[in-house]
Amino acid sequence: MEQTMQQTTQVIRPEELLKHWQGHRDLTRRVIEAFPEKEFFEFSLGGMRPFAAMTMELLGIAAPGLRELAGGNTGTLSEHFEHGNQKARILEQWDADTEEINRVFATIPTERFQEHIKLFGQYEGTVWSSLFYFIDNEIHHRGQGYVYLRVLGIEPPFFWDRK
Amino acid sequence: MEQTMQQTTQVIRPEELLKHWQGHRDLTRRVIEAFPEKEFFEFSLGGMRPFAAMTMELLGIAAPGLRELAGGNTGTLSEHFEHGNQKARILEQWDADTEEINRVFATIPTERFQEHIKLFGQYEGTVWSSLFYFIDNEIHHRGQGYVYLRVLGIEPPFFWDRK
Repeated sequence: MEQTMQQTTQVIRPEELLKHWQGHRDLTRRVIEAFPEKEFFEFSLGGMRPFAAMTMELLGIAAPGLRELAGGNTGTLSEHFEHGNQKARILEQWDADTEEINRVFATIPTERFQEHIKLFGQYEGTVWSSLFYFIDNEIHHRGQGYVYLRVLGIEPPFFWDRK
Repeated sequence: MEQTMQQTTQVIRPEELLKHWQGHRDLTRRVIEAFPEKEFFEFSLGGMRPFAAMTMELLGIAAPGLRELAGGNTGTLSEHFEHGNQKARILEQWDADTEEINRVFATIPTERFQEHIKLFGQYEGTVWSSLFYFIDNEIHHRGQGYVYLRVLGIEPPFFWDRK
């Protein structure tokens, strides 16, 4: 992606933000993979949700949210689709969304990031703050997934190991 | 902070990044406060560190790391100081660092964020990617602290409630 119109140095360029996000998404994918099938859908601590439910939230936010940020129609937040408790089905959706995120992100003009938006008809912020929320929320829940894995006796991938 | 020299819209402006970071630090402070004194230093799950040890890592990174990012001398990463298992002593350091971060951050020129750095003499990246690492790492460990609190039967502050 070329940014030939850039006159001022960006704190972070759009393509860097995309790569940063996808690096986190790749790490989250490896955390999903690290869970045994049954525990992914059933294991939890302290009355919290299983990691599968957190993953469904992440899927409900990322690609649908980005479509809105890019100027698409306002939708409602949905954290459900038919996965039949199959991790493979969820990973398939994850990978399809990875491609869609790359495609949609590239259509966002730089000046759009500072625009105001009311995401999913209710969450107010700027385009950048919404995107940061997507990433932060993913790190937050993935950190919880790390504890689940540790308690299950499974070593999670290194936090700093990102593409 | 005025950015009168800005010709091109920033994806995120330096002062927005600072506010975003401090919003996360404020939330982490409230998570520290939510822990009972004893559990803060002793409770853990799955062989992980108590939240106090994670907090000491965050303190070792944030203000000392930012000083380097702003052009200060290279130091070594230290995750220890004498706190005598007093949460109040750690919170006191946290608050002093909050002020220092505001002060030091304001001295970083915008073009500096894209510069290369080898932080603490070993971690290579740009200034922005290092800062993002500080924030991401804090969210990651704080998410783990949320699980500790839930297992202890304590309701953590809302993740989205930031200044």
